[in-house]
Amino acid sequence: MKHQLNKIIERQKPSGIRALNQEAAQVDGAISLTIGEPVLETAQRIKDAANQALADHQTKYPPYQGLLVLREKIIEFEKELQNIDYHVDEVIITQGASGALYSALGAVLNPGDEVIIFEPAYVAYYPIVKSFGGKPVLIDTTPMHFQLSYAEIKARITPKTKAIVINSPNNPTGVIYNEASLNALKQIMDEHSLYVISDDVYNQLVFDAGATFLVQDQRYKKQVIYCQSFSKPYAMTGWRVGYMMADQAIIQQAIKFQQYMAAGVAPFIQYGAMQALKEDVKPVVVHYKKHYEAAAKILKEHKIDFVEPQGAFYLFVNISKSKMKSWEFARNLLHTNKVAVVPGAAFSDASDDYVRLSFCVDYEKVVEGTTLFAKYLTSLES
Amino acid sequence: MKHQLNKIIERQKPSGIRALNQEAAQVDGAISLTIGEPVLETAQRIKDAANQALADHQTKYPPYQGLLVLREKIIEFEKELQNIDYHVDEVIITQGASGALYSALGAVLNPGDEVIIFEPAYVAYYPIVKSFGGKPVLIDTTPMHFQLSYAEIKARITPKTKAIVINSPNNPTGVIYNEASLNALKQIMDEHSLYVISDDVYNQLVFDAGATFLVQDQRYKKQVIYCQSFSKPYAMTGWRVGYMMADQAIIQQAIKFQQYMAAGVAPFIQYGAMQALKEDVKPVVVHYKKHYEAAAKILKEHKIDFVEPQGAFYLFVNISKSKMKSWEFARNLLHTNKVAVVPGAAFSDASDDYVRLSFCVDYEKVVEGTTLFAKYLTSLES
Repeated sequence: MKHQLNKIIERQKPSGIRALNQEAAQVDGAISLTIGEPVLETAQRIKDAANQALADHQTKYPPYQGLLVLREKIIEFEKELQNIDYHVDEVIITQGASGALYSALGAVLNPGDEVIIFEPAYVAYYPIVKSFGGKPVLIDTTPMHFQLSYAEIKARITPKTKAIVINSPNNPTGVIYNEASLNALKQIMDEHSLYVISDDVYNQLVFDAGATFLVQDQRYKKQVIYCQSFSKPYAMTGWRVGYMMADQAIIQQAIKFQQYMAAGVAPFIQYGAMQALKEDVKPVVVHYKKHYEAAAKILKEHKIDFVEPQGAFYLFVNISKSKMKSWEFARNLLHTNKVAVVPGAAFSDASDDYVRLSFCVDYEKVVEGTTLFAKYLTSLES
Repeated sequence: MKHQLNKIIERQKPSGIRALNQEAAQVDGAISLTIGEPVLETAQRIKDAANQALADHQTKYPPYQGLLVLREKIIEFEKELQNIDYHVDEVIITQGASGALYSALGAVLNPGDEVIIFEPAYVAYYPIVKSFGGKPVLIDTTPMHFQLSYAEIKARITPKTKAIVINSPNNPTGVIYNEASLNALKQIMDEHSLYVISDDVYNQLVFDAGATFLVQDQRYKKQVIYCQSFSKPYAMTGWRVGYMMADQAIIQQAIKFQQYMAAGVAPFIQYGAMQALKEDVKPVVVHYKKHYEAAAKILKEHKIDFVEPQGAFYLFVNISKSKMKSWEFARNLLHTNKVAVVPGAAFSDASDDYVRLSFCVDYEKVVEGTTLFAKYLTSLES
């Protein structure tokens, strides 16, 4: 029999991030600056909490919505962090931000609905929208220095526009939306019945004080779906735990997805997450800032242009002087100087003049990898 | 703003199983025979394996498909258990059978596709099919003593039929499909290009030797999608880990869903699952059989009809002599004799003369709960 499969899913390509990472694994001695995974290890206290929960028989079906005690702690945590007020019924525990984004889009999308995505963008937004029969509407932010423009958004709004996905600090650029960007979004929300799905997974990894985020303006609480993860600030990428905060009607929809796709997150993992909320993230930010400054110094010494990140742990670097497409450049770099980076084209067609370097690996690797990258790019100048 | 949500999801009702369980939690001293969750605790060796993996830094992003070392062990295990041959590329690790069923249906369904479901049925099949825009086509198996009929299936096949969902041993009846049922399915697969999604989560909890399962006939390997869980045999319901075995083209689709909805299962949980495969399930079967025999004895003494289960840990009991609908009966039973059971109507409209009793709780509770249930039902006879 010839397979007859879900056609939308069949057409989706695998993530370009993992593709290069897998290629790098075949190259002996290669330094990988591809994946956004902290080399830091999950704190022992977090592991101990999970292990204690295992000993305490926290091995039974969790509520689909997540443990009440964790939801309570999250509400206290977000109040302290961002001065926002949510109720335990307005939170659901998810499989990291992935589970949150998937349930958020699933909660609101009907087939044919349009979702505005700002490019360059994290690779999962587009295929998730497609998987629900939605239509991604792309806006290239490169000409806006990766900020948002009211006019650009307004021009794309149709009666079918159901949601806008935002990501600040941004992957791959590290840019944080400024006041003008946030105001553009608010004006759009004032004028249109639509949701803003806010992927805020890097919001604790911010280099300087003073950044604000859309979720903090609670006048828009009914329209904003806040997606969060324990992965990046607490080095818990493999734990697959995060949460979504939104109006209760949306949470009720997300609970159904949670039931269908997974039946919840392991309770002992949720106890680990509860401990994570008590951890101090400041030393982690200092750690990444040191990595960033070292990498930036090397790039500047080689007169290489890059987007100055205000948070997260990526450098989005301009390679136009290589005169190569980003995939070609990345492959050649890997096989010549043994450094793996992510081609900009993985994040948008318009980003083919860029590659992304992650600086969340060991300090020595950041320095060595960035130096080899810079030397290679410089060697291509004619 | 008025919410405009995913309409299909909005219309889905919460599971009737959990509804009664939550009501029971409000009744002081109530015995709950509702949820299919073993009261047994996960073996210490399994917990130790997960904890050791945490210590060994198994806290990073897993491959979406699951750890190769676990997939290798699963293949060996299934070869030993069922004498079937699968390749590591034909397995994906999932969030229990929920994740497997969701990815299986997502992998094959296009909007408008029909999926045959045999009723009474586990409560998740219907809403998952709906969530993908599919159309559930229901066949009541009650008149067939909960077995399958070629003629009944054949009569429902249309050009839109994409898949058939089966479940043996069955929840809620405990019935194992006999040779005639399996032959009916095979004949249908010979005649039509469709998939059979086989939910086999109770296949190790079988009371007598000699049962066979569809997946064991490897002539149909390309059409059968086998969904399995660690939850029931190893008392790991809260761990949310299981797997799917199928043709590689289907696994490739499932990997994409895994990426979108969760980005994989925690590696340290996968190490726990690896240890589980070494556990001896025989004492567990002896344990449940003892529970079953005690409950059946009580029902027989009260001359109460029930479906004789060959596996799993449920009794599907006829309450027609109560002259009540199953929800009314279950609520009255809870508030009169303080026993919670699941109304048959949760599993199909045609099962309103039944309720489901789980016998996976403590032996004393099985005996006491079944006795109180039997006394109540008997008291209603006029």
